[in-house]
Amino acid sequence: MTSTPAEEQQAEHLQQVFHNTIPLSKAMNLEVVHLSANCICLKAPVANTNINIHGTAFAGSIYSLCALTAWGFMYNRLLIDKLSADVVVAEAKIRYLRPIKTWIRSEYELDEQKYAEFHQRLLQDGKARFSISVQAQEDQQLQATLDASVAVKLTD
Amino acid sequence: MTSTPAEEQQAEHLQQVFHNTIPLSKAMNLEVVHLSANCICLKAPVANTNINIHGTAFAGSIYSLCALTAWGFMYNRLLIDKLSADVVVAEAKIRYLRPIKTWIRSEYELDEQKYAEFHQRLLQDGKARFSISVQAQEDQQLQATLDASVAVKLTD
Repeated sequence: MTSTPAEEQQAEHLQQVFHNTIPLSKAMNLEVVHLSANCICLKAPVANTNINIHGTAFAGSIYSLCALTAWGFMYNRLLIDKLSADVVVAEAKIRYLRPIKTWIRSEYELDEQKYAEFHQRLLQDGKARFSISVQAQEDQQLQATLDASVAVKLTD
Repeated sequence: MTSTPAEEQQAEHLQQVFHNTIPLSKAMNLEVVHLSANCICLKAPVANTNINIHGTAFAGSIYSLCALTAWGFMYNRLLIDKLSADVVVAEAKIRYLRPIKTWIRSEYELDEQKYAEFHQRLLQDGKARFSISVQAQEDQQLQATLDASVAVKLTD
């Protein structure tokens, strides 16, 4: 994934929002790898803070990275769309498929048509929920999936 | 909840296991409040490391505390039952019902009959899954629920 200078700025801004407002994301050494209007990728090293008793990635770190992928995508997209809103993860289901040994790496790519429907509901009702399915994978092996329902409420 | 001296030792041991093998639990200032053969309670302060952009508990911290409640309960119960096994959270669903402002506090109490059936399957097949429903609550207000499926595999 190549990024435009504007996208690089957005990625840097989101990483600062994470580190400045969510201390655990900093403790996790979370990085924003790529961010655009329709795509996001985050990563965090398993060593040293995201490890568990088995020497692989801690379930809570994998969840946190995937949940912040969903939240961060929506946060950035609303900024691009010039909408002022509160964003919270309302519920989420995670499945752990394989142990993660070196990097936790999450990805999400938007379906623009699904987003257009959500955007319309949001403008009409002042609030709406959007489903975001995040994948954690490395070397094309799927390691975990998170299905999150993100609740958005306009504030202006 | 009052604890016997043996239960207090178990609680102290589990907290050390968390802090020594899962660095994020230490960063979260996670504490084991109560632990027995059929009951567990954990807590962590929202300030300073478990906070989010809204000044309430970070979704990933709530999830991590609840997932460690499920994992920690099973870890301790298998110790009591003198079974040597690997324990992992295989999947989990979390629902966030209310913002958490001061302490994240999780609870789980075992249904012994359900556990007896699981125990039998585990001895018979060498592996089995067990469903654990954790509640996060304060002042009798339910704030979040986690339904976790914990996979257990005998190692000896």
